Amino acid sequence: MEALDYHAEERRKAEFDLEEMKIVWAGSRQNYEISDRMARLVASDPVFRKDNRTMLSRKDLFKDTLRKAAHAWKRIIELRLSEEEAHMLRSYVDQPAFTDLHWGMFIPAIKGQGTEEQHEKWLPMAYKMQIIGCYAQTELGHGSNVQGLETTATFDPQTDEFVIHSPTLTSSKWWPGGLGKVSTHAVVYARLITGAQDHGVHGFIVQLRSLDDHSPLPGITVGDIGMKFGSGAYNSMDNGLLRFDHVRIPRNQMLMRAKHLLKKFSWIIPTMSSCLSEKTTQKKPIITELKCHSYSVIFMDKQVDSSEVTREGKFVQSDVPRQLVYGTMVYVRQTIVSDASCALARAVCIATRYSAVRRQFGSQNGGPETQVIDYKTQQSRLFPLLASAYAFRFVGEWLKWLYADVTQRLQANDFSTLPEAHACTAGLKSMTTSVTADAIEECRKLCGGHGYLSNSGLPELFAVYIPTCTYEGDNVVLLLQVARFLMKTVSQLGSGKKPVGTTAYMGRAEHLMQCRCEVERAEDWLKPSVILEAFEVRAFRMSIACAKNLSKFSNPEDGFSELSPDLLEAAIAHCQLIVVSK
Amino acid sequence: MEALDYHAEERRKAEFDLEEMKIVWAGSRQNYEISDRMARLVASDPVFRKDNRTMLSRKDLFKDTLRKAAHAWKRIIELRLSEEEAHMLRSYVDQPAFTDLHWGMFIPAIKGQGTEEQHEKWLPMAYKMQIIGCYAQTELGHGSNVQGLETTATFDPQTDEFVIHSPTLTSSKWWPGGLGKVSTHAVVYARLITGAQDHGVHGFIVQLRSLDDHSPLPGITVGDIGMKFGSGAYNSMDNGLLRFDHVRIPRNQMLMRAKHLLKKFSWIIPTMSSCLSEKTTQKKPIITELKCHSYSVIFMDKQVDSSEVTREGKFVQSDVPRQLVYGTMVYVRQTIVSDASCALARAVCIATRYSAVRRQFGSQNGGPETQVIDYKTQQSRLFPLLASAYAFRFVGEWLKWLYADVTQRLQANDFSTLPEAHACTAGLKSMTTSVTADAIEECRKLCGGHGYLSNSGLPELFAVYIPTCTYEGDNVVLLLQVARFLMKTVSQLGSGKKPVGTTAYMGRAEHLMQCRCEVERAEDWLKPSVILEAFEVRAFRMSIACAKNLSKFSNPEDGFSELSPDLLEAAIAHCQLIVVSK
Repeated sequence: MEALDYHAEERRKAEFDLEEMKIVWAGSRQNYEISDRMARLVASDPVFRKDNRTMLSRKDLFKDTLRKAAHAWKRIIELRLSEEEAHMLRSYVDQPAFTDLHWGMFIPAIKGQGTEEQHEKWLPMAYKMQIIGCYAQTELGHGSNVQGLETTATFDPQTDEFVIHSPTLTSSKWWPGGLGKVSTHAVVYARLITGAQDHGVHGFIVQLRSLDDHSPLPGITVGDIGMKFGSGAYNSMDNGLLRFDHVRIPRNQMLMRAKHLLKKFSWIIPTMSSCLSEKTTQKKPIITELKCHSYSVIFMDKQVDSSEVTREGKFVQSDVPRQLVYGTMVYVRQTIVSDASCALARAVCIATRYSAVRRQFGSQNGGPETQVIDYKTQQSRLFPLLASAYAFRFVGEWLKWLYADVTQRLQANDFSTLPEAHACTAGLKSMTTSVTADAIEECRKLCGGHGYLSNSGLPELFAVYIPTCTYEGDNVVLLLQVARFLMKTVSQLGSGKKPVGTTAYMGRAEHLMQCRCEVERAEDWLKPSVILEAFEVRAFRMSIACAKNLSKFSNPEDGFSELSPDLLEAAIAHCQLIVVSK
Repeated sequence: MEALDYHAEERRKAEFDLEEMKIVWAGSRQNYEISDRMARLVASDPVFRKDNRTMLSRKDLFKDTLRKAAHAWKRIIELRLSEEEAHMLRSYVDQPAFTDLHWGMFIPAIKGQGTEEQHEKWLPMAYKMQIIGCYAQTELGHGSNVQGLETTATFDPQTDEFVIHSPTLTSSKWWPGGLGKVSTHAVVYARLITGAQDHGVHGFIVQLRSLDDHSPLPGITVGDIGMKFGSGAYNSMDNGLLRFDHVRIPRNQMLMRAKHLLKKFSWIIPTMSSCLSEKTTQKKPIITELKCHSYSVIFMDKQVDSSEVTREGKFVQSDVPRQLVYGTMVYVRQTIVSDASCALARAVCIATRYSAVRRQFGSQNGGPETQVIDYKTQQSRLFPLLASAYAFRFVGEWLKWLYADVTQRLQANDFSTLPEAHACTAGLKSMTTSVTADAIEECRKLCGGHGYLSNSGLPELFAVYIPTCTYEGDNVVLLLQVARFLMKTVSQLGSGKKPVGTTAYMGRAEHLMQCRCEVERAEDWLKPSVILEAFEVRAFRMSIACAKNLSKFSNPEDGFSELSPDLLEAAIAHCQLIVVSK
């Protein structure tokens, strides 16, 4: 009760319109209303209860997840939720499940890399969940370097089959979600071998478990890799391990979309609406209208090929432009940046409310103690995180524009902005997720001892969020890509090639190297142009310093390796500039 | 198998003697041997298995903890372990349990604050564990500010009793370990009220549960506060909540060591050896020789009084010098700094081994990929943490000396170094535990995706370590204490009072304000004196800047509040200097 009063008092002090701010945050009034309605729906449904989640044993937690996944699907159908509504509902259920991988990775991989015939054979079964699939790429010894995968798929022209095999311990598939307990099938990424030739990594549809009794098929070793950080968090997911002992599959289970240029560059982003209509028209025509949650997160990797092997064992290289994959990555990373702002906002919201309610020390003449939020030490840690949440929100919105822009250009066969857009989204993915992960932990600390209780929401928010720093591009690897792009941009400055987009500032090289900060009084820092220029100058000078040091090495790769900590710093400075400028 | 080879290769490259380093780390050959022997003992005993810990439901985890606590005790007796051995054994069992609070807080509180009569009545029962106790200080609304506790103990002269009561929601006891499920008794900290007068916070022995059927006694509401961060970690502990509805206890259950000056300043540090000998002489005389683990962590708070209430309700103020409590705090914080180095070393060890085994990218001509430890980006993050682990180890050793020095001085009634020693240990506790908590998470990130698996050991190490940043003085509150001490020291610089101990450098004020860095070439930074001076100059100038800004405020407390973020920075700079200088 007391808590509510404190909050009312704080809210009264706001110098902006609370209702309007909610809409700004949500992006539109409609978004806000959907979000609000779905939040209430989840909160009021006992099947979606979360209060006991951290108390359950792993087994019970997993059962609970199966129940929720099924119930969410049921409610989406019953209530005829729109795509946006279903998306919000699932995000409020907030419990990772095997279905994320089935709809978000397995089906998209087949859609994106499979032929029309493969689509016809596999997608209907997948849509009806007669088969459940996962995405088996990462191996025990191979994560970021997809080209280092060791699993082999050797073509046997005698039988017209591929032999899938795990030649080493490190080649064991490790991490795929949905693999440990549930999946019947997987898209397995393996080195394609024809004759004695290694054609790099390709995708193969492999059945793992019997459709009769769910037991692993001969030659397949499969299991759960055990507990992960937190008590709830990703422990609702059956991340798994998988080994093959000369498992044979027909040739036509290699994903072979070699010559089918994606029409209109549709980015292989599947929506459940298409799934649903296919699935349900047979029984309930009414649902064909239904637009459902787009499971739009795809982890297409630029290092994975989609080619063809003929009956004779001839390898036919794909003619799909590699750049298309970058377009997909721009899309996926834009959603990650938006999600970062949501995760950060949740943490900041908890810490801010706590700080308003919690009082400690400072009682005078027997009066109440001081609200923790009034301490400068609390403010100096909390408020920058609050500001970051908004900043990431707006950067996320800008990335939507960038994605639209890139898409439009690609449709006009204009690949010119793609490298810059790719570097920009890689850097923003890295920076926003790293900041958010650290910020959630900082918010937990800002709640003192109470932040350590699962009931605060912060331990589980932290545990469920931090994998974002690793997946869809490890944050350090991504920053090094940004650094590489920056060095390339710097090297071309003299060539007359004008830097574009978020690197446009580098076109003012002379000014940025010579200008001096114009701040004379503290108030001058309130001018956005002053702050922006300071960030530009810093980012540019750091890039130039790195480039100069790099030029001292006779082998540029040695230099890049030796200077990589400095290059990381320069990349971070560049990314911070992007956030400030948007 | 491969992993071991990589490690052997790395170890061969060491330019120091591995065996000698182990001994340096342990403090002595004897310590090393004990530690090694106890580690093997725990590792080889199936009761102490840890591999399934994170998979258990909360209930099963708690049962597992009870089993381990009992088994540890049994083995300590059976093997006649020495105090040091038992300490190591328990630290390798590595699972927080209610016994930590019974032996480490409940008994010490009675020993330290109780009268001889109270010792005679309560300690034998506690030693035999006929009663199990906890330490009920923190309340839902009151942590750092012990003076703000709301629970009342009102003397009723009619019945010669105290009435213990929880007048508000925020007065509920919240957090005490061992309270939720196990404890039969508690030392409860409450405001002593006689007549209409409030005498501040005192300790009271209160029975909570029936010794017949363990049900809560009338007027007592007690329970577990639920899950905490991590899946194992502190969830093995039954942190609890407790409310009193006018619970009556006899007057002689107030801890009333008012006039009993501790002889020889023995710091109230109990050893189980004394417990054991008392406990066991009756049955097995052989065990009287046994020296057992000293449960030496005490959370005596300087804000807690130990006074007396007479039969007539007269309040008699304690004449125990407050400074004694500071001495205890020096001791406790020294152990926390040592423990920080161990936790950090464990994390760094895992991350370093992983970095040596893990390879990613950089394969040339089909050869093996590059060991992750050879990447400069990995080194620049990992190696400073490795160095910090050693630094904290040596600071911990130095703190042992400091504690001995303070003890000796106090025995000679010399309180002169106490404020400095107190500030120093407060700062070091704060700095080392904050760095260690962040470093464990950084080590987890350095293990990529694998660090997210509980099997890496890092998630649970993080979850079990982080409360250290909050307990025995919240890290921010402690740094503000250090800052206060620094400001006082600066203000006395002109007065002729020479700064002592770790603030001695401030005596060279003029030099530190005027000197310029003598570094001309990169190699100059290898001179320890150069680095030391840089840290001194930085710390001193930050303190002076704060002091100058403080002097602009007419009300110093307003200034301290307004400038607290800067003051925190100055305190951190001072603490970093201490670590560098030791």
